[in-house]
Amino acid sequence: MNNTLSQGSLSAPTWIWYPGDFEIVLANKVQNRRTERGTFFPVFWKLDNHYVLMDFHKAVEVPAPETVDIYVEGEYHVKLDGKALEGSPKQIVVPAGKHKINIKVFNQANVPAIYVKGETIFSDSSWLVTFEDKEWIDETGKASDISATKWVNAGSSDFNSPAQLPSQFMLPTKKQEAVAVTKGKQSMLIDFGKETFGFIQLQGLVGKGNLSVYYGESEAEALSAEHCETLDRLEVDNPSKNDHVMNLSKAYRFVHVQYDEGVMLDSVSMLYEYADVKERGSFTCDDAEVNRIYEVAKYTFELNTREFFIDGIKRDRWIWSGDAYQSYLMNYYLYFDNETVKRTTYALRGKDPITGHINTIMDYTFYWFLGIYDYYLYTGDRSFITRIYDRMKSLMDYVLARRNKNGLMEWLPGDWIFIDWAAGLSKKGEVSFEQLLLARSLETMALCADIVGDKEGSAGYNQLSVDMRKKLFELYWNEQKQALVHSRINGTQTDNVTRYANMFSIFFDYFNQQQKQAVKTSVLLNDKVQKITTPYMRFYELEALCALGEQDYVLREMKDYWGGMLKLGATSFWEEYNPAKKGTEHYSMYGREFGKSLCHAWGASPLYLLGKYYLGVKPTAPGYARYTVEPNLGGLQWMKGTVPTPNGTISLDVTREQLKIRSTTGEGTILLKSKVKPEGQQLTMTDKGNGLYEIQVKPGTDYTITYKAN
Amino acid sequence: MNNTLSQGSLSAPTWIWYPGDFEIVLANKVQNRRTERGTFFPVFWKLDNHYVLMDFHKAVEVPAPETVDIYVEGEYHVKLDGKALEGSPKQIVVPAGKHKINIKVFNQANVPAIYVKGETIFSDSSWLVTFEDKEWIDETGKASDISATKWVNAGSSDFNSPAQLPSQFMLPTKKQEAVAVTKGKQSMLIDFGKETFGFIQLQGLVGKGNLSVYYGESEAEALSAEHCETLDRLEVDNPSKNDHVMNLSKAYRFVHVQYDEGVMLDSVSMLYEYADVKERGSFTCDDAEVNRIYEVAKYTFELNTREFFIDGIKRDRWIWSGDAYQSYLMNYYLYFDNETVKRTTYALRGKDPITGHINTIMDYTFYWFLGIYDYYLYTGDRSFITRIYDRMKSLMDYVLARRNKNGLMEWLPGDWIFIDWAAGLSKKGEVSFEQLLLARSLETMALCADIVGDKEGSAGYNQLSVDMRKKLFELYWNEQKQALVHSRINGTQTDNVTRYANMFSIFFDYFNQQQKQAVKTSVLLNDKVQKITTPYMRFYELEALCALGEQDYVLREMKDYWGGMLKLGATSFWEEYNPAKKGTEHYSMYGREFGKSLCHAWGASPLYLLGKYYLGVKPTAPGYARYTVEPNLGGLQWMKGTVPTPNGTISLDVTREQLKIRSTTGEGTILLKSKVKPEGQQLTMTDKGNGLYEIQVKPGTDYTITYKAN
Repeated sequence: MNNTLSQGSLSAPTWIWYPGDFEIVLANKVQNRRTERGTFFPVFWKLDNHYVLMDFHKAVEVPAPETVDIYVEGEYHVKLDGKALEGSPKQIVVPAGKHKINIKVFNQANVPAIYVKGETIFSDSSWLVTFEDKEWIDETGKASDISATKWVNAGSSDFNSPAQLPSQFMLPTKKQEAVAVTKGKQSMLIDFGKETFGFIQLQGLVGKGNLSVYYGESEAEALSAEHCETLDRLEVDNPSKNDHVMNLSKAYRFVHVQYDEGVMLDSVSMLYEYADVKERGSFTCDDAEVNRIYEVAKYTFELNTREFFIDGIKRDRWIWSGDAYQSYLMNYYLYFDNETVKRTTYALRGKDPITGHINTIMDYTFYWFLGIYDYYLYTGDRSFITRIYDRMKSLMDYVLARRNKNGLMEWLPGDWIFIDWAAGLSKKGEVSFEQLLLARSLETMALCADIVGDKEGSAGYNQLSVDMRKKLFELYWNEQKQALVHSRINGTQTDNVTRYANMFSIFFDYFNQQQKQAVKTSVLLNDKVQKITTPYMRFYELEALCALGEQDYVLREMKDYWGGMLKLGATSFWEEYNPAKKGTEHYSMYGREFGKSLCHAWGASPLYLLGKYYLGVKPTAPGYARYTVEPNLGGLQWMKGTVPTPNGTISLDVTREQLKIRSTTGEGTILLKSKVKPEGQQLTMTDKGNGLYEIQVKPGTDYTITYKAN
Repeated sequence: MNNTLSQGSLSAPTWIWYPGDFEIVLANKVQNRRTERGTFFPVFWKLDNHYVLMDFHKAVEVPAPETVDIYVEGEYHVKLDGKALEGSPKQIVVPAGKHKINIKVFNQANVPAIYVKGETIFSDSSWLVTFEDKEWIDETGKASDISATKWVNAGSSDFNSPAQLPSQFMLPTKKQEAVAVTKGKQSMLIDFGKETFGFIQLQGLVGKGNLSVYYGESEAEALSAEHCETLDRLEVDNPSKNDHVMNLSKAYRFVHVQYDEGVMLDSVSMLYEYADVKERGSFTCDDAEVNRIYEVAKYTFELNTREFFIDGIKRDRWIWSGDAYQSYLMNYYLYFDNETVKRTTYALRGKDPITGHINTIMDYTFYWFLGIYDYYLYTGDRSFITRIYDRMKSLMDYVLARRNKNGLMEWLPGDWIFIDWAAGLSKKGEVSFEQLLLARSLETMALCADIVGDKEGSAGYNQLSVDMRKKLFELYWNEQKQALVHSRINGTQTDNVTRYANMFSIFFDYFNQQQKQAVKTSVLLNDKVQKITTPYMRFYELEALCALGEQDYVLREMKDYWGGMLKLGATSFWEEYNPAKKGTEHYSMYGREFGKSLCHAWGASPLYLLGKYYLGVKPTAPGYARYTVEPNLGGLQWMKGTVPTPNGTISLDVTREQLKIRSTTGEGTILLKSKVKPEGQQLTMTDKGNGLYEIQVKPGTDYTITYKAN
């Protein structure tokens, strides 16, 4: 048994399983709930499955005999000190002293899981699990040496009561009523007032005949029986009135219910289905439009935060790595819910063998690594790194084996190079953006290798990442264009400059100061470089500009772009927004009239930008052990807000003359630009010259600092 | 799409799935039916799982519109020419002309499977399947190039009606009555007359209280409530009489039913559970004991031929590669049932990634390859080789990566080197037997690489196998001992000579003639070399002697060893038999009083020896396209028998003066030793000199040849 495994520190019993198995199977269920016009619409990549046979193990020491209750999902036996007890006991008594408990579980249809509850003995992530115990006995009855068995710490997810069977997990729901109803002859158009998600409930349904429910994120969509993206058909045969709840939850603001003459219906309501996560971050300011943008971003994110961070609630409802990566970042400034991040990370990764990129997309494989980098920085959770490291390694093996003869990533059959939805974007040859993401992924590998104590891995990945960054600049930096070019074809730089690699190189700090300033002009603020039309890449574009101190500009862009959607009546933010389009043109995508998602997670990025670049709070050591606060009003008169951290919150109240801060965690450094020397109680301050001051803050103290914004 | 895939030639619809998935999931169910004294007793190696999401594809051409019925296990959609039809249709109409049909199925709990039935369009192994279609569309609605999708031919197993749902597959049963009943006070001892397998049925059960069923392969075991290996406990609460069938089928000849005073019972019968395979081979001769041995071997094999070829029916009921390898060979002389061979091969192999040897045993990994070698030789079935080749390759990659610095197989943590149950058998260092099995496995790889057209693989595996054979003799042959030694430790030959590598080198033809004769004396007939006590290795020992022409000696051994078990009252052959033991000593193993299995597949080897080395029939080209018949009476006066082949049978009637043969398949060559020149109608004969004659026989003709045995 490997003694270097981290031992969890939960103090209450919880359901446990092989790490990732619950997540993978739940993701299979969730992703296969997608329908398109009544037709089952599954993903097009490999879905993995759970280990059907699992051994759970714990070495215990009890001062007195202890009665232990055992709950299991699956067939099982219990071994005490290597000896099987008869049958499948629901309760055992562990005698005083040191003992070894093993519970071996078989479950073909669901994930093998156990819940053990005694006075001091209970199931938590300190239990070890293995899917092959290799414990054979010889003909004389002697047991084999099982030192080769690979044990890992169990996975869990806060299912803390015996009745919360992991296999039965469902999100909670609550009833919501329509805000407007338009009745027709044998039809009803219902408006729920804003984008929503859940199960439609038909009340007082009676008679015999067919009934159809047409869902619409827009009124136009609900009214288009021919082209709406989702619908339900029902054969009604109710002699007396009853209520009917649809099988599948769906996304909509409007539903249009149409039914045959023999059918009657009293009313339509819905069961709103939501993830039970807690809002811990906040932001308000003097600009009502910005506040509204923040509120709608929050709601957009709420809707897309489900069992996992999904891309959009209407159409895919799938877990996409590039989309999830952004959701993780927004999450750190709103919910700080680690469980959903970990669950999504497991689900995306699946299991070995790897037969394709995550979601089939090369860039999405890289975002998966980057998400783990951020997770560690924000949460400081080493135990998850320990659990996921093997899967990181084998995925990186897959990636490295696919480099071309120049050591670069290039399209291979089966790969999808996505980058962004952008007309005519070339994916040919060696695309700079993919090399950049690989470099960052290798840095993540080096970091995590260090955490788990893989010295050889750490050195190897470090060298590879240094080489890849060097190559990126040697091969793609164009001195004349003052930019990284988009790609190389046949070993030659193409003429094309796109924003992607350039903007990431700013906030990854790959550029030096001179390059950053050059790229701001040559690329970011250069209208000749192809514009970005998705909130997805707007996220990074605006982040790059914020990293360059362009908060004033970004705030205007935010009001323009997200404000633009609000002016069109958006109640949640969209998959794509092109101000040049008109009317229902906004709803089409993928060659379909209502193909576009009007509630897409990547639309919620103001949550992240306002928290990280306006309130200006970010961790500088894992889990906010140290952090910086670099407030930037970006033209606002005042802003207030809270940023959640693993062990507390950081609250700010900022005007142009005063900064109030209270933190309950970590060592903070405020970076303040001021025309006068800031003043306040208990300040430890360093004057950096040029109007920049560093002020140290401790947890648990209220600071009020007066200054004068530059 | 890969056009080189073989297209099946079935002419009727059948249920189809991803090759191996049905087999793997069924094996999970079957192997986890083991209990030990009422306690669930699962395997200790990794169990794999099915792909939950599957795309089934077929390109069709129909002269007129065709109505097609669709049956699916799982949620699904149907695409015609790439366009999804609404809902999950149970019937579609395919218009006249060329069309592409895709059915995509999700099933978490069971294997995704379909059954399609139209006039000319129906599901069979010519359909293609993939677990990742990689078919994405861009923002304009354009579909991706899916040429990267890896399609393989579907798997199937003669489930030819829509109602035969693969997930519901169970073996058939038939009722059997007890042959003797001994009633006690609140107990009943039932004797079914011989070893059997199935579900105990309690008839006329009434009252309230506890009831126990103690199973015994021997009377002693059934009467030992304390030590019998399997039992059932039942809480009876029947106000009126009814019948109760036990949940799990078990192995026994005797059952002892004991019940509380409040419980009453009329009688006990059973439902015999069996595989519905057809007996096609036969053997009879003038020696009644040999005939009895053949009959009991047949019954032993019948009992162990279930969903898969299992090792023994009482205890493990697991699929062990070394045991299955022998069952395959017996099967070719009794049932010639390809389905059970393929099913067992898939189940043993499981899926990637490989994390341990098959059954955790190094030798058992090698037997898996050898089983495929034999399967191809006996059946000529290339399509299975095509389907399994990828899994052969990745398993061989695993093996080759585990060679030590000398390029030899040596124990690594997690490995079990089994070879045989034999007291004090050393597994240290580099064991010769494992190197020999690797050499043969590499030959199998080269053969199969040729079949699937993997030229690079073929050359590589061929070179590796030649090297390994060379090494075997360079490193282990001891000129003084005239034998291969058992092992090397620290680069030096050990003093130990065992039978294993020596006997295999005879029938693998690794030894030259001189070595074979030398080894016969120095090892096989040398009492100083540790004796073999399992029918498992007796199989190979006797095969080696037969290959050396020692049929007379082997017949005496057979009568002595298998006859010995019969004399002790065996109704099926055992896991181990040591004539030196007495009474109930025979029943113990693994440190347990009744640990030994009294019905073990490997006990049935006379089926194979009598068919291959007495009737003397074996294929010399795949699928019996060519075969030889080298009859050897081994001291018998006469023998009759039939050997099944893929496309017919070969029937023989042999005395010391006359040989009658009728074959319905292939080109046969009789190899006949005769003191006179054989005579008969239509003979094409070559006199090889020294009393050896080669006689060519054609299918469909009866030959009667007179000769005089040497």
